Amino acid sequence: MTRRYGVAVIGAGYWGPNLARNFRAHPAWDLVAVCDRDESRALAVVGERSTVDVETSVEAVLARADVDAVAIATPAATHASIALAALDAGKHVLVEKPLAPGSADASKMVRTASDAGLTLMIDHTYCYTPAVQYIHDVIAKGMLGRILYIESTRINLGLIQPDVDVLWDLAPHDLSVLDYILPGGLAPTRVSATESDPLGSGKSCVSHLTVEIGDGASAHISVNWLSPTKIRQMVIGGSHRTLVWDDLDPIRRVSLHDRGVTMGQPSQDDRRRAAVSYRLGDITVPALAETEALRLMVGEFAAAIREDRPARTDGAAGLRVLSVLEAASHSAAHHGEAVRPRHVDSETGDME
Amino acid sequence: MTRRYGVAVIGAGYWGPNLARNFRAHPAWDLVAVCDRDESRALAVVGERSTVDVETSVEAVLARADVDAVAIATPAATHASIALAALDAGKHVLVEKPLAPGSADASKMVRTASDAGLTLMIDHTYCYTPAVQYIHDVIAKGMLGRILYIESTRINLGLIQPDVDVLWDLAPHDLSVLDYILPGGLAPTRVSATESDPLGSGKSCVSHLTVEIGDGASAHISVNWLSPTKIRQMVIGGSHRTLVWDDLDPIRRVSLHDRGVTMGQPSQDDRRRAAVSYRLGDITVPALAETEALRLMVGEFAAAIREDRPARTDGAAGLRVLSVLEAASHSAAHHGEAVRPRHVDSETGDME
Amino acid sequence: MTRRYGVAVIGAGYWGPNLARNFRAHPAWDLVAVCDRDESRALAVVGERSTVDVETSVEAVLARADVDAVAIATPAATHASIALAALDAGKHVLVEKPLAPGSADASKMVRTASDAGLTLMIDHTYCYTPAVQYIHDVIAKGMLGRILYIESTRINLGLIQPDVDVLWDLAPHDLSVLDYILPGGLAPTRVSATESDPLGSGKSCVSHLTVEIGDGASAHISVNWLSPTKIRQMVIGGSHRTLVWDDLDPIRRVSLHDRGVTMGQPSQDDRRRAAVSYRLGDITVPALAETEALRLMVGEFAAAIREDRPARTDGAAGLRVLSVLEAASHSAAHHGEAVRPRHVDSETGDME
Amino acid sequence: MTRRYGVAVIGAGYWGPNLARNFRAHPAWDLVAVCDRDESRALAVVGERSTVDVETSVEAVLARADVDAVAIATPAATHASIALAALDAGKHVLVEKPLAPGSADASKMVRTASDAGLTLMIDHTYCYTPAVQYIHDVIAKGMLGRILYIESTRINLGLIQPDVDVLWDLAPHDLSVLDYILPGGLAPTRVSATESDPLGSGKSCVSHLTVEIGDGASAHISVNWLSPTKIRQMVIGGSHRTLVWDDLDPIRRVSLHDRGVTMGQPSQDDRRRAAVSYRLGDITVPALAETEALRLMVGEFAAAIREDRPARTDGAAGLRVLSVLEAASHSAAHHGEAVRPRHVDSETGDME
Repeated sequence: MTRRYGVAVIGAGYWGPNLARNFRAHPAWDLVAVCDRDESRALAVVGERSTVDVETSVEAVLARADVDAVAIATPAATHASIALAALDAGKHVLVEKPLAPGSADASKMVRTASDAGLTLMIDHTYCYTPAVQYIHDVIAKGMLGRILYIESTRINLGLIQPDVDVLWDLAPHDLSVLDYILPGGLAPTRVSATESDPLGSGKSCVSHLTVEIGDGASAHISVNWLSPTKIRQMVIGGSHRTLVWDDLDPIRRVSLHDRGVTMGQPSQDDRRRAAVSYRLGDITVPALAETEALRLMVGEFAAAIREDRPARTDGAAGLRVLSVLEAASHSAAHHGEAVRPRHVDSETGDME
Repeated sequence: MTRRYGVAVIGAGYWGPNLARNFRAHPAWDLVAVCDRDESRALAVVGERSTVDVETSVEAVLARADVDAVAIATPAATHASIALAALDAGKHVLVEKPLAPGSADASKMVRTASDAGLTLMIDHTYCYTPAVQYIHDVIAKGMLGRILYIESTRINLGLIQPDVDVLWDLAPHDLSVLDYILPGGLAPTRVSATESDPLGSGKSCVSHLTVEIGDGASAHISVNWLSPTKIRQMVIGGSHRTLVWDDLDPIRRVSLHDRGVTMGQPSQDDRRRAAVSYRLGDITVPALAETEALRLMVGEFAAAIREDRPARTDGAAGLRVLSVLEAASHSAAHHGEAVRPRHVDSETGDME
Repeated sequence: MTRRYGVAVIGAGYWGPNLARNFRAHPAWDLVAVCDRDESRALAVVGERSTVDVETSVEAVLARADVDAVAIATPAATHASIALAALDAGKHVLVEKPLAPGSADASKMVRTASDAGLTLMIDHTYCYTPAVQYIHDVIAKGMLGRILYIESTRINLGLIQPDVDVLWDLAPHDLSVLDYILPGGLAPTRVSATESDPLGSGKSCVSHLTVEIGDGASAHISVNWLSPTKIRQMVIGGSHRTLVWDDLDPIRRVSLHDRGVTMGQPSQDDRRRAAVSYRLGDITVPALAETEALRLMVGEFAAAIREDRPARTDGAAGLRVLSVLEAASHSAAHHGEAVRPRHVDSETGDME
Repeated sequence: MTRRYGVAVIGAGYWGPNLARNFRAHPAWDLVAVCDRDESRALAVVGERSTVDVETSVEAVLARADVDAVAIATPAATHASIALAALDAGKHVLVEKPLAPGSADASKMVRTASDAGLTLMIDHTYCYTPAVQYIHDVIAKGMLGRILYIESTRINLGLIQPDVDVLWDLAPHDLSVLDYILPGGLAPTRVSATESDPLGSGKSCVSHLTVEIGDGASAHISVNWLSPTKIRQMVIGGSHRTLVWDDLDPIRRVSLHDRGVTMGQPSQDDRRRAAVSYRLGDITVPALAETEALRLMVGEFAAAIREDRPARTDGAAGLRVLSVLEAASHSAAHHGEAVRPRHVDSETGDME
């Protein structure tokens, strides 16, 4: 039997407890410690009648011999310094998104991990959901044909936060999914974004982002913090089929519409039929597993370490998302002016 | 009892039959003739065992003394010449959207009708649906509070048409609704649009349009011809309440979310609750009548004539929509550059 | 070209106008007259600028040489006498459901039409919807496998009526569908029904009906007049696949679940998966036409006459439904005691 | 601060792990042991790096001084003997449903607990969901008016089990909810049930149950193991309002229809409107908390012990459900013959 890896979760705030719960339950991992400056928060995560250790210093965690890997769920501003220290200490590293507050730090993280031969992985959780896995496979098999457009909507009642705007809070989810499902990953030629701050809060709460993904196709992302009702929907239109992912519909999370788009002069009759029909073409709604994404994610972390290969969502994926976000912010500041994101070298983390 | 008005429908193609059916069934109207160059099409609309006349020349229709009004459902390129001839002949005029292919012609139509003291009305059908009427009233009563954002999505499998792109085909519906429900009508300060033609058809099939509607608020319109599934959804976010209009959900066409947006520092607990909840705040789903919009529209046409007042969707409304469309096309041609639409004088039809 | 048949609609109340509209628009038919004792109601159906005749006496209608067929949409109590007179006058007959208030009259109608070689058809409208047509075909092709159970729910805010209870008002719709889709038609071995009148109105408003359809399978029908929200749902479970018909969901009216039922000892793991999954197996949602059922129904009436064959919903079908309803009423009066419906001879209309 | 109670979970099969997880996380409880004959199952529940004890004998658990209460999640056949032993040992007892395989044992359990002054509680989990809590409160406040009917549907792909049929497997959920929400609890005057076994498995897989709940009102329960799609829906019709609970719709789990039922002669116009409308009256969809029911349930267990009062779902509630199930089985064996359930004395557990 393969040996289990010892892991410590650093940061016991919002996301840390979820990571701890999944490491604890996964056969590939042995959760040895939870670390937070606030001991009571770490204690609450560990729970009673437990022998998992509580630590209050990162240094202490990194000094432990029984820690093979750390999962960093601290505020974004601290990601880079903790991750670099962990890599220096020879630990594999999982980082909650974003990889770092800016691409310069993130690039350095990717290079450091690469040089050290350690695994650097980003927790792009959505990429481990059964729905996104299915979408990835459907595209990889060519079932959608050529991708013509993607429309993604992610709105909810967000909380206006001191450190990020809606673009940096929500769009990483959509971009990380695009990076995973698009053949070749996320490498857009142009990005154009707008944003608005109707509350005068100092942070934009509504934003729209167009990403040119090549071949005349574009992906559009709409994010919004001001809606009391959630929408989590992505439509992927292909030349053969169209896929609709409605993440809030547990019964029909993914629908595959057996109808792509063809050209040609429509008849009057076609027009009439299109007008009265709610849709055209059969729909297939696949049965998806109800696996928890975080469980698969921590499993992938262990597998990437064991097999000494890049994780499905490696540091370079996190860096590509950052590169697009930075371009989008630049565009929005210039009222939609098109901006070319910097290209990421997945090996070295270099940007050009 | 008030006398009925004689009306002739000009154009027996796609939309004309619907107009004819509604004029025929409405107590304020007497459908006296249907006109089309292709006599067989007009005959098909009139049907058998009918004494409604069939005409093949517009001149013959305009010469009839029993015709008080005409409804024009011919191709857009002919709207202006037929409408101006009808106004010259002293007839009231209803025009299928768009009012004219360009704002110059449309402006002339508005001025001519105004000078002649005749009713010029545009068939913005959606404005006569029970849902849009309800939305208008809810906003007018202040129930939403200050409007912060509007998100409108209108996608379906459209037919690529020789004369219009997706923006000119679909966005007029959204813009006409905005013109009706926004206090003060549609008078945006800036417009920004992008478009793409992933099929290489020569006409853009996917387009996104941001319209600044004042006070930091914006309306975003997403139109798409390439989707096998229809979406017809508008979210209107206000400071007090949020309204969701899903036109394809007959059971919950309009939902009023009893939750607006307030500022303030969210607690960790708020964040957790927002993350796990599908929504916050109670929803009210009003019972709406199932009245046919076209029936209300032809009734409004008669009422506007009788009461000698502008129709709810008068010529100036059609002109305002054209002004925004022209600005949007200009912006899209310049890759999203912001453009200020020309202002419309509702009285005279003048633009500046 | 085949000649058109002359038809008169008798009864201009609730349903008559719908029939008149469809006969008028159908190329196989020539609507020559609308008849009602109340001339103003008939006039309203005929409309203005029309040369369709208005009649106020059934005798006058039946005496007309240009009337090949009549459609009877009068109160149920008058169906038999009008239909028998029409058959005597050599007219083909379409009857709104129920065929007659009781099976004795209905049986006589079937026999009379059979003897006279005339078409007697019942307007079981649902059998002409694209959804039911699809269900029929799917079952006929064996795609569901052996039918194990049927659950039908039909509830809405009904109006308590002086002449019928909820069972006789609503269940005929479900029974007519069963008669059409079940191979071999509706010929149950046992029927058991209960009913309640919680308002004390003198008519039951809630009723449940179990119909044994052979081979251990049963169909259960739930009808209810007291619900402000409509439900129109039928689940048909087969050994290979399961079909769900939700008539109020225009987007997913029919779903075919790629999962039947197999026996065998479930594992603990199966149990867990069943517990957490919303469903098992892929779903296919076929694209259905949006044809109006009544148009297909009047077309079938003409075709049955022309081809001298029983209509899809002939008099015998109406009689089979009556036979089950009578048995159900008897059972409900005896608090659910099982009752065997009388068997219908489709040729002669005899019952035994 | 109040002291925490020590609890042991007995049975580490299907449900036990859920109980253990919730006891572990609840501040009122200290999970001291998990007991199963199969040590490895108990170990898996306890998990690693834990000091919760594993026991393999019930006697050992009951002998522990640090165990104030036990939660029994063993097969139904063993509930009574374990519960009685636990009560004899002075432990408070929570039992997974059903309370016992038959009412005789269950009655003895209620009496024993009552005599000993110990808490006997049944895990009717649904009664602790926010939806059922809301329904209970709405009814208690009189917002629905007089209850006229209840329709409950609970179907899914069940697993045919060796020891229970579909009625005993699924209907307890509906009956436990009825017992909680009906003022006065579940005390029906008559029960009528039918069942079928279309697979010939020896256990009925489809069953329908009518429960007369007084005042002419009835509740109908439809349970089915053969459906690949889940339905969990309850409609509660009152004289003032109607409530719809759709447990699988996370966005609109409960809808309150602002429309009850009134009598009176409907007009033709009413009939027309009812026919075309999907529904009548406004709907309110309340925001419900997303609390886990089991967490509330274990909290109620602690509160009932501390406050020395009957739990919301006490032993008598479990016994009332058993009484109705036994009557229903008797009725189904006699093809729907009405049966009067035995009345339960909540104090003593006596049945008459």
